[in-house]
Amino acid sequence: MKEIKGFSKLAKREKIDFLVRELLDNSCDAKDILDSFGHRDQKTQKLIDDFSENTISNFHIPFGVVPNLKVNGNVFCAPMAIEESSVVAAASKAAKYWFSRGGFHADVVGVLKVGQIHFKWLGRDISKLQRFVKEREPYLLDAVKPLIQRMEQRGGGIHSLELVDKSDDIENYYQLVLKFDTRDAMGANFINSVLEGVASELQRDAKVCDYFTKSEQELMVVMSILSNYTPECLVKVHVECPVEDLYEHSLGMCAEIFANKFVMACDIARVDPGRATTHNKGIFNGIDAVVVATGNDFRAIEACGHTYACRDGQYRSLSNAKVTRDGRFHFELEVPLALGSIGGLTALHPMAKIALELLGQPSAEQLMKIVAAVGLAQNFGAIRSLVTSGIQKGHMKMHLMNIMNQLEAQPIEQDMVQQHFDDRIVSFGAVRDYLGTLRTV
Amino acid sequence: MKEIKGFSKLAKREKIDFLVRELLDNSCDAKDILDSFGHRDQKTQKLIDDFSENTISNFHIPFGVVPNLKVNGNVFCAPMAIEESSVVAAASKAAKYWFSRGGFHADVVGVLKVGQIHFKWLGRDISKLQRFVKEREPYLLDAVKPLIQRMEQRGGGIHSLELVDKSDDIENYYQLVLKFDTRDAMGANFINSVLEGVASELQRDAKVCDYFTKSEQELMVVMSILSNYTPECLVKVHVECPVEDLYEHSLGMCAEIFANKFVMACDIARVDPGRATTHNKGIFNGIDAVVVATGNDFRAIEACGHTYACRDGQYRSLSNAKVTRDGRFHFELEVPLALGSIGGLTALHPMAKIALELLGQPSAEQLMKIVAAVGLAQNFGAIRSLVTSGIQKGHMKMHLMNIMNQLEAQPIEQDMVQQHFDDRIVSFGAVRDYLGTLRTV
Repeated sequence: MKEIKGFSKLAKREKIDFLVRELLDNSCDAKDILDSFGHRDQKTQKLIDDFSENTISNFHIPFGVVPNLKVNGNVFCAPMAIEESSVVAAASKAAKYWFSRGGFHADVVGVLKVGQIHFKWLGRDISKLQRFVKEREPYLLDAVKPLIQRMEQRGGGIHSLELVDKSDDIENYYQLVLKFDTRDAMGANFINSVLEGVASELQRDAKVCDYFTKSEQELMVVMSILSNYTPECLVKVHVECPVEDLYEHSLGMCAEIFANKFVMACDIARVDPGRATTHNKGIFNGIDAVVVATGNDFRAIEACGHTYACRDGQYRSLSNAKVTRDGRFHFELEVPLALGSIGGLTALHPMAKIALELLGQPSAEQLMKIVAAVGLAQNFGAIRSLVTSGIQKGHMKMHLMNIMNQLEAQPIEQDMVQQHFDDRIVSFGAVRDYLGTLRTV
Repeated sequence: MKEIKGFSKLAKREKIDFLVRELLDNSCDAKDILDSFGHRDQKTQKLIDDFSENTISNFHIPFGVVPNLKVNGNVFCAPMAIEESSVVAAASKAAKYWFSRGGFHADVVGVLKVGQIHFKWLGRDISKLQRFVKEREPYLLDAVKPLIQRMEQRGGGIHSLELVDKSDDIENYYQLVLKFDTRDAMGANFINSVLEGVASELQRDAKVCDYFTKSEQELMVVMSILSNYTPECLVKVHVECPVEDLYEHSLGMCAEIFANKFVMACDIARVDPGRATTHNKGIFNGIDAVVVATGNDFRAIEACGHTYACRDGQYRSLSNAKVTRDGRFHFELEVPLALGSIGGLTALHPMAKIALELLGQPSAEQLMKIVAAVGLAQNFGAIRSLVTSGIQKGHMKMHLMNIMNQLEAQPIEQDMVQQHFDDRIVSFGAVRDYLGTLRTV
């Protein structure tokens, strides 16, 4: 393939025609698929197209709900957008299980978000820089006042501004760290605009600071941007019940053994990074599904959560389980979640709006609690399966069903396929081949 | 809201009706939205519904392409499914920029995937356990032979089996770690089925091991599951050119200063976890968009990448930049990517199939290279913006456009809104209010 010129300037129809001609073998099928995955209403499609660039269609993620999620006594029907089998099923099962055992208990520990102005300053006496930042702080904040007004009216704004000496790590490198309360907004645009405003003012002020030498006056901002690492925007959630109440026939073991295996599975995820990665991946299966459904940014949530998981120098599980001395099973999750329930895509994507309506238009803090509860529910469901029947049984059943749907297997074929694959690895090719042999008999 | 009973048993139509009645204020609008985001072809919608559970509609992620992505001399049009503004635009700009500077150079370092059988063994003399595993290894592998046949025919299979002593971390805790080559499949189902098979055999064999004591024979498998941490399924990608070739008028500075600021921005992300989180988040903006578009699992990719980012005990950037002694700018990314280009959703989701067709049906290794290149392109675009004009300028322009679309602003209103918000924070409320004042004048 050669260089394509002016692709972004083409109309959407022309983009599709070009790609179908050059890369998709001129296939009518491909063209039909691209078209059929477009939204039937042109105005809505235009809206979705404008979220991104060079769009030619939409990727559909199944949008489902988890009923009976009880958080702090309130019952929610949590929206989840996820393409992975069994995730919604496992969360639903766990939500129902804990519904009758007191539900999920969630607390927001803090809501602070973080912005960093990274700069170079060529002085040797840091006390001069400290004096400068201290003196100029009111003026720096004053410079961005117009940007902050609306946020302050909503009860948010800048929480603190602090100089951080990073010159031990990199010569002449310092940070201004600002913390923000952005209320119900995720606040990325707000934070970045404020940071860029403060940063320009900082450079300007340094240039005319009369106790700086010439080279000290040339303070150079490298970059100004929010940090997705927000350990102070944190939520805790737990479930708890007497060990004996854990019993269900389907566990296939007594409550004590189940509790012990469950606790050991969590302990393993605390000490072994290889297991912790997958353990936390399961938590994010639940978290991300609600994050996506509500129009939040899952990359930000993932990056922050995993960094938090290694804050003590080793990558560990975000959740923990124990059996207390008085015989209670306790399972908890602590996770930073910088979410918004207003602004950004939450207000623009029609399905995100529906998702938030399903949750009763929650505040950002309420959303943090709900999302964390789904994360813990997901984690509970996964570990429960792992330490009892194993996860493959349910997984493969669903995967097999997907493949049979795709191959349009008839009911009688479905029975035979299910029997055949009872002790075999399910794959698209294997099912197709087996169906082939059935059909040629 | 009270407990909902039997929700999963309802037909899809009934689920929607129930939710609209109970939670969406009986709104016809909400019902129309849920319906309109369904796929117009019922069979296709059924297929998508069966990926997940309790589905009521689809979440549309805009599906766009990045043209002119040159990887190892081949030019690709990379599919990206992402809802965030500017991501596709930035990747496209970076792809084009590097197209004329030699493109991206990518190498797959390894393709091994990992599975863990976590178990408890009550012995004190580990040499007995070592002997047992060594002796039984051929039989353990033999027990899962039927599961592996097809994978071996494709050139993959089990690469190694190793006993790991974890009893220093948790009393009596050991692992069997298996490594796999799953060829072009992501291989999660394959790995999990094999692990569960080996684990049952392990327990059975221990029970009859004649040099084990009674309690040693009671080897207890806690869980068997793949590890999403795959540091040996790794790809490296870099771009490189003489520093002076970096120059473009739009940088607003000379090539040397740009290169130095760029390198410093990367150095900062190496030493500061707060910055590293956001730096890597930007890389995953690109990576995840291709991962989603090709039907791969972004939670797995995220969890693995971030764990890899803290492998030395501090969370750090995954990419690095330097200026070499002979005046060349070098920018590289090293990231584990356990991807599949066959099987799972890649074969089932019609849009994932199109995505892979756009890439010319790549092997898993080719896909790893392409995805890594998009990650590096994304990272380049973000850092370039950050160290030159800042990111807010482009971001806010796009965000403002989205909001004006939503509010159906006319061209003459658009001009006035753009002017007004030149030095103000853009939010949906603020734009709506300002448009309101314009419209009432």
